Amino acid sequence: MKAIRYEAAGQPEWVEAPIPDPGPGQVLLKVEGVATCPQWDMHLMRGESMVPGGVIDYPTAIGHPGHEAVGIVERLGGGAEGFAVGDRVALWQDQGAGRDGCYAEYVIADTANLIAVPKNLSIEEIASLELAMCIQVSFDQILNIAPIEGKRFGVSGLGPAGLLAVQLAKAYGASEVVAFDPVEARRDLALSLGADRVLDPRDPECFPYNRFKPERLELAVDCTGLPVSVEFLMQRTREVVALFGVLREEVRFGFFHWCGALHLVGYGNQNRFAAERALQHIKSGSLKLAPLISATMPLSDYRKGIELLQKQEAIKICFTP
Amino acid sequence: MKAIRYEAAGQPEWVEAPIPDPGPGQVLLKVEGVATCPQWDMHLMRGESMVPGGVIDYPTAIGHPGHEAVGIVERLGGGAEGFAVGDRVALWQDQGAGRDGCYAEYVIADTANLIAVPKNLSIEEIASLELAMCIQVSFDQILNIAPIEGKRFGVSGLGPAGLLAVQLAKAYGASEVVAFDPVEARRDLALSLGADRVLDPRDPECFPYNRFKPERLELAVDCTGLPVSVEFLMQRTREVVALFGVLREEVRFGFFHWCGALHLVGYGNQNRFAAERALQHIKSGSLKLAPLISATMPLSDYRKGIELLQKQEAIKICFTP
Repeated sequence: MKAIRYEAAGQPEWVEAPIPDPGPGQVLLKVEGVATCPQWDMHLMRGESMVPGGVIDYPTAIGHPGHEAVGIVERLGGGAEGFAVGDRVALWQDQGAGRDGCYAEYVIADTANLIAVPKNLSIEEIASLELAMCIQVSFDQILNIAPIEGKRFGVSGLGPAGLLAVQLAKAYGASEVVAFDPVEARRDLALSLGADRVLDPRDPECFPYNRFKPERLELAVDCTGLPVSVEFLMQRTREVVALFGVLREEVRFGFFHWCGALHLVGYGNQNRFAAERALQHIKSGSLKLAPLISATMPLSDYRKGIELLQKQEAIKICFTP
Repeated sequence: MKAIRYEAAGQPEWVEAPIPDPGPGQVLLKVEGVATCPQWDMHLMRGESMVPGGVIDYPTAIGHPGHEAVGIVERLGGGAEGFAVGDRVALWQDQGAGRDGCYAEYVIADTANLIAVPKNLSIEEIASLELAMCIQVSFDQILNIAPIEGKRFGVSGLGPAGLLAVQLAKAYGASEVVAFDPVEARRDLALSLGADRVLDPRDPECFPYNRFKPERLELAVDCTGLPVSVEFLMQRTREVVALFGVLREEVRFGFFHWCGALHLVGYGNQNRFAAERALQHIKSGSLKLAPLISATMPLSDYRKGIELLQKQEAIKICFTP
C-alpha cells in the first residue's frame, strides 16, 4: 500500500508500506477519507511537537498523525467483535502515540476506537467525527456546570474546532452565539454556520470589557489556546470559560474573576459517549462537518494540502488515499 | 443603647446611640451575641477596606461591621411577616454597606435576612450562621460539579472558614480531609474537628506536587485568598479548586492545569437556601460553630477581642452586648 511518512522534520514522503495484519480485537480498515488535524499537521511540518516539551522520533510511524478517518472494515482480527467486513466506521479517537496513522490506504484500528457510521453521509460529512467528539467533551463540561439553553455563548478562534463549537452552541439552544476571530473569511464561515454575531477581537471595543454588564457572555469556549484570547473571554464571560485549545502558556485569574464565580475549566477526558452524542448531532443535521473541508484531494498531495493550511487558505483538507 | 462605632481608622469606641425603629418589613432585634468576622475586623482596625480599592467613611455606621449575630425579636415594623416578638433568630447574611451593624445592644434587621434558630443552641453554637452559609456556598459550587463523597478533599487556611470547611467536607462524605495551615494550634483544632491529616504547607514536600498521582487531592477549597496557597492547591488537586478566600492578587493557570480539566472556581452568590442547608448541618451536629469561638466577652471589650485576633491568639471572639 501507499502511505505518508515523515522521514525527517518537515519532510512528509509518499512511501510504500506493507498492508498490516489486524491483531486480536482489531480490524483492518480501508481508509475512504481522512481529514487534517490542522494544528498537529502544521506543527509536524515545522518539526515541532504538539505537546509542550514533547519529542518527535523520525521516521514517524506510517500514516502519522492522520486520525480523523472514515473507512470500510476490510478484515477482522481474532476476537474482533461488534463489526463485520463491509461495515462503514469512523475512528472516534486517535489511537495514541507510536501507532500507525490513517494517512495511508489501510490502517489497523482497535474495535474499541471505532463507531459505526451511516453509509449515506459523504466522506467530508463524517471523516472528522473525532474532532466533533473532542469539542463535544468541552460542551459536556459546560453542561455539567450550567445549562446552555437561553444563554449568550462566546466562541473564540474559528478554526475547525471553533466552527463546530458555534454549531453545538446553537444545537444546545444558546440564545445568541458570538464568535471571535481576526480572519474575516473565518468569521463569514461562522456566520453561515449559525453564529449570530462575528467580531474581530483585535478591536478592543468589539465587545464590552465587563463580566457584570447585561450584554456580557454567559458561557464561552476558547478554541485558540492563546492567553490573549482566553483572558479576553475571562474578562467578558459571567459563568464558565472552557478551554478547548491546548493552553501552552499561563493565564491570570484575579479578583475580577473571583467575584461572581467565574469557572475556568481545563480540557476533559475524551470518551466514547461524547462521540456518540456528536454522531447524533451529525445525523440530525445540527452539526455539519463538511463546511470545514476546504478541499478534497488525493493523499499523495498531502504536502500541498498542508501548505494551504499554512497559508490560511483552508480550514481543513480531506485526503482520499 | 450602647454600641461600637469606628470614629476613625483603628479607633473603635463604645458609644451611646438611640434604639432604632424598625421600618416596613423589618424587626428590632435584641442582640444576644455577635461573633467577629476576623478578616473584616482586623482590616478595619488597620484602617483598610476588605474590598480591593474600597474606601471607608468615618465615623462608620453604628455597630459596623458586626453581622454574625443571634438575637431575639423585640419589636415588629409594619408588614413584618414570618416572625413574632420573642422569636430567636440569626442573621443569615450581612445587611450591606451603610447599614447599622450588630456590634450593638439592638439592631434593625430586614426579615428577609433572618432565619429562625432553635432556642436550645448556645450563642456560640449559632451566632456565626452567616459564616456557615458563606462556606456552604463554596460547597454547593463544588457539589454542582462533582460529588464529594469518597473523595480526598483539601482545605487550605484553618481560620474560621477553613475549620468549617473541614467539617462540611466530612459531612458530605469525603474519604479523607487534608488540611493545611502554618499555625500548629490551628492544625490541632482542625484535627479535633475531624481533619484526617494536617500539614504545614511551608514544607514543600508535605504533599506530592502532582495532580496526576493517585495520592493527589481530588477537590479542594482555599480559605486564605493568597496566591501562594491557591497555586499550592492547584498543583495538587485533580478536579476542582474552589476559591472561598477573597483573591486580591492573580493566580496563574497553565498547561499543567489545562490537562485533565482542573476547574478553578471563583466565589459564588450567597443565598438563603445555603443558609438553610448550613443550619441543618448545625442542627444535626455535623457542623459545630462553638469550637471556633476562642473567647466570649462583653461587647465593651471589643478592642481587646480584636487584639487577640491580631496576635493569632484567637480564632473568633463572641461578644455579648
